[in-house]
Amino acid sequence: MSKGRLEAFSDGVIAIIITIMVLELKVPHGDRWRDLVPLVPVFLSYVLSFIYVGIYWNNHHHMLHTCTHVTGAMLWANLHLLFWLSLFPFTTWWMGENHFTADPTALYGVVLLMAAMAYLLLQQTIIRSQGPDSFLKEAVGRDWKGKLSTLLYVVAIGVSFFSPKVAQVILLIAALIWLIPDRRIEKRLAVE
Amino acid sequence: MSKGRLEAFSDGVIAIIITIMVLELKVPHGDRWRDLVPLVPVFLSYVLSFIYVGIYWNNHHHMLHTCTHVTGAMLWANLHLLFWLSLFPFTTWWMGENHFTADPTALYGVVLLMAAMAYLLLQQTIIRSQGPDSFLKEAVGRDWKGKLSTLLYVVAIGVSFFSPKVAQVILLIAALIWLIPDRRIEKRLAVE
Amino acid sequence: MSKGRLEAFSDGVIAIIITIMVLELKVPHGDRWRDLVPLVPVFLSYVLSFIYVGIYWNNHHHMLHTCTHVTGAMLWANLHLLFWLSLFPFTTWWMGENHFTADPTALYGVVLLMAAMAYLLLQQTIIRSQGPDSFLKEAVGRDWKGKLSTLLYVVAIGVSFFSPKVAQVILLIAALIWLIPDRRIEKRLAVE
Amino acid sequence: MSKGRLEAFSDGVIAIIITIMVLELKVPHGDRWRDLVPLVPVFLSYVLSFIYVGIYWNNHHHMLHTCTHVTGAMLWANLHLLFWLSLFPFTTWWMGENHFTADPTALYGVVLLMAAMAYLLLQQTIIRSQGPDSFLKEAVGRDWKGKLSTLLYVVAIGVSFFSPKVAQVILLIAALIWLIPDRRIEKRLAVE
Repeated sequence: MSKGRLEAFSDGVIAIIITIMVLELKVPHGDRWRDLVPLVPVFLSYVLSFIYVGIYWNNHHHMLHTCTHVTGAMLWANLHLLFWLSLFPFTTWWMGENHFTADPTALYGVVLLMAAMAYLLLQQTIIRSQGPDSFLKEAVGRDWKGKLSTLLYVVAIGVSFFSPKVAQVILLIAALIWLIPDRRIEKRLAVE
Repeated sequence: MSKGRLEAFSDGVIAIIITIMVLELKVPHGDRWRDLVPLVPVFLSYVLSFIYVGIYWNNHHHMLHTCTHVTGAMLWANLHLLFWLSLFPFTTWWMGENHFTADPTALYGVVLLMAAMAYLLLQQTIIRSQGPDSFLKEAVGRDWKGKLSTLLYVVAIGVSFFSPKVAQVILLIAALIWLIPDRRIEKRLAVE
Repeated sequence: MSKGRLEAFSDGVIAIIITIMVLELKVPHGDRWRDLVPLVPVFLSYVLSFIYVGIYWNNHHHMLHTCTHVTGAMLWANLHLLFWLSLFPFTTWWMGENHFTADPTALYGVVLLMAAMAYLLLQQTIIRSQGPDSFLKEAVGRDWKGKLSTLLYVVAIGVSFFSPKVAQVILLIAALIWLIPDRRIEKRLAVE
Repeated sequence: MSKGRLEAFSDGVIAIIITIMVLELKVPHGDRWRDLVPLVPVFLSYVLSFIYVGIYWNNHHHMLHTCTHVTGAMLWANLHLLFWLSLFPFTTWWMGENHFTADPTALYGVVLLMAAMAYLLLQQTIIRSQGPDSFLKEAVGRDWKGKLSTLLYVVAIGVSFFSPKVAQVILLIAALIWLIPDRRIEKRLAVE
């Protein structure tokens, strides 16, 4: 089984998710700058989700790169990840429409957490398929980014009930740590 | 004729189908957990359809894998399958919006049945194009999953008029039998 | 310049066009079979357009197959074709919503005609890029299907103002002649 | 890292952007030609944006063609470009719905300007990754089209507050200069 279609299908689904999120930026009735003001929270929540979906695409791209063949278990673990990603537009819109209040912020965090779990599951499935000398296992190493961001999602969910603002800052930080260039997989490839 | 574009186009259409189904999860007006309650049936029906579309993509991926060239008849048999799959969002939404009542459940089953027929037709078209020593024919074998799930769709359609709940359980079982790892095609490939 | 991305981009756009057309099948409020009755014209017009978009994808697939390199002129001729195809959902919905009355039927025919012209223009652009011994030119031959269907679109547009029903039958026939297996390009390939 | 998925993902996102823009052509209630008249401004603004997205796809296609490997910085610079392109449907609809008045025209220009900046940033990122003998750097040369169109966007934004009509003509001219065949990259390739 080649990985070409797994990548193509994932690219398609992620491309659609990242693009339809913008549809909640509904065209306002007026034609003045001030008519755009009510859209600001929806826009901000779109920006945050765009970054998150971008991170997932980016990591998915790197992870699959280490993969030479595809198993049935990987197909399903991948679909499971796409399922949680497909809920991003909904949670983005609910949070944006409600100006970042408690419950929508918590749900946003829960779906991020589930997607992180699904990503981890896919990673484990690939590592298992690669056997004891798994290239991906070595490349991932101790996976501090994966662990730290998962911890931050859990903290953000808890905090959101007391202070949604603080929870959003935590979720933003959890995104930004992924923007730090990560050369683990690239380095391992260079060593080969 | 290469199969690259047939796969790419099918991936695109299936990726869009699986993703737009989530659009019926309309953002509620309130910002509390309880405001999500009316969305539960739509969500459940989304989950069921996500699994079904995932199964079709998965099987399509395996089936096309055995294929080395593409004929005009295959292009049309494939479009015919995509047509029935494209009706999944509509039947999913109608069933979810109406809390799984009789007629929407029956229609959901009918479209599943038509998609199964279309899949079988595509399978036969590929087998015919491969001649007497068809690799796919051998790999598919007696196709108990295909036959059993088709039977279950027919039963579910009939049952839905008496007890939609039972019909939905049958449709769920018909989905789950596809999640049992199926190594027929992978096995045949290993033998080669 | 390789043709890979031209095909991938066209596949993406055509996949989206063929799939979003189904969105006009709006979920009815009731949950009985009779609630689906008002959707029948929209459904029929969806089926017709699905066939037409399928034909375009099919022909596009064959035509590009004869192509080894891509020029700037071809990129724009292709985008021009995609522009007219992108209007299919609108004309499909307008015709379906209005139960196949005169003006929507005429507009449907006009957009079909413009797409046919754009397809012809793309074909000529490719033939010109292939020089005097153009493979595509020989394969296309006298192009009776292209000429006949263009003629039928023109006739259907004229007829639609007197009898939309007859116009629709003509448009259906124009679609069906493309379903007749056409082995011109496949034959030319076999000769090589 | 190969560029295949970067191209595939970008193609997917751009294909969706170019296609969903047509969704704002909402089906009118009446079935006469005159019922289409209110849609004319939305249609015109769709045509302008279709050309612009087409230009971006075209240029992206050429630019990536000169690229042999992909770095992490390129992935993010590319996502940044896609972010601004993803706002095209919104600005197109706002401008079309409001019959090309001042503020929507200015915003349309601002998003075009940001996309141009993002494109330039991606170009610089690729040139830097190619080292001192960058193929792309030589091919791009003095980049008069890039510079002139950026200047025209800035002028159009300023002018839009006094005369939106003149601003739109400037934006149209900025689009048309990209339709002039540009053989820089093709020429450089031929030299190799």
